[in-house]
Amino acid sequence: MFIQIEPQLDIPIYAQLRNQIMEGIVRGELKQGDVLPSVRSLAADLGVNMHTVNKSYHELENKGIIRIVPKSGAVICWQAEDNVPEDQIEQLSQVLRPVIVEALVLGMNDRHIDELVKSIISNVKGE
Amino acid sequence: MFIQIEPQLDIPIYAQLRNQIMEGIVRGELKQGDVLPSVRSLAADLGVNMHTVNKSYHELENKGIIRIVPKSGAVICWQAEDNVPEDQIEQLSQVLRPVIVEALVLGMNDRHIDELVKSIISNVKGE
Repeated sequence: MFIQIEPQLDIPIYAQLRNQIMEGIVRGELKQGDVLPSVRSLAADLGVNMHTVNKSYHELENKGIIRIVPKSGAVICWQAEDNVPEDQIEQLSQVLRPVIVEALVLGMNDRHIDELVKSIISNVKGE
Repeated sequence: MFIQIEPQLDIPIYAQLRNQIMEGIVRGELKQGDVLPSVRSLAADLGVNMHTVNKSYHELENKGIIRIVPKSGAVICWQAEDNVPEDQIEQLSQVLRPVIVEALVLGMNDRHIDELVKSIISNVKGE
C-alpha cells in the first residue's frame, strides 16, 4: 500500500497517516493479519518523526483496528462485522453531527450533502 | 434559544456550545442580527469557565458566523449563501472524509451511511 503524506494540508500528519491506513482497509489493500512496518521504519520511509507514527498506531489500536507488536510492527486485527454495534454508530454519529451542522449553516441542502457524502464514498473506494 | 451542556459527553464543552449555536442557526432560532449574551453572562448561566465560552465564540468568529462586540456580546452575522463557495465545500470534505472512512471500516455500507446522515439532518432541523 502506498502512503503519501502532504505536509501542506491543514490535517495533522499523524491523522493523515491514520486515515490512509483506514482507507487502505476500506479498499481491501490491507486485510486482517497483514503486518504494518515498525514505527521506526515507517517513520524513516515517510521522513516523519517516530512520535507521529506512534500516535497514528496508538489511535488505530484504541479503535481496535490494529494490534501493536512491540519491536516488530503492527498487525491489522480488524474484521468488519455484519452488524455494526449500536454504541459505535452512536459514537460516529456524535462526530458526524457537527460536520453536518456546519454544512447546513454554510447553506448546503439535504441533496448537496447527500451528493458530497456519496462522492467521498466513491473516492475512498477508488471507484 | 435553550443551550444544554452535557459534561458527561466525550465532546469538549466549548465544542458542545459552538455546535449548539450552529444548530440554533440551522433551525432558524438564531438569525442574522441576533445578539448572543456576553462571554461573562453566558459562562455564569451555563456554570462553565469564561475561557470555554470565549473559545466557542472565537471559533464561530473565525468561521465568519458571529462578530464579537467587545464588552457587550456577539452578533450573528452569518447569512447562508445560495451558492456555497467551492473552497468551503473542499474544507468540509476534508473533515467529513475520515469520519466516513471510519464508518466504512466499521462495516457500514453506503445505504447505512446515507440513512445515518439523513437521520442526523432531520434531528438537527428538529423534524
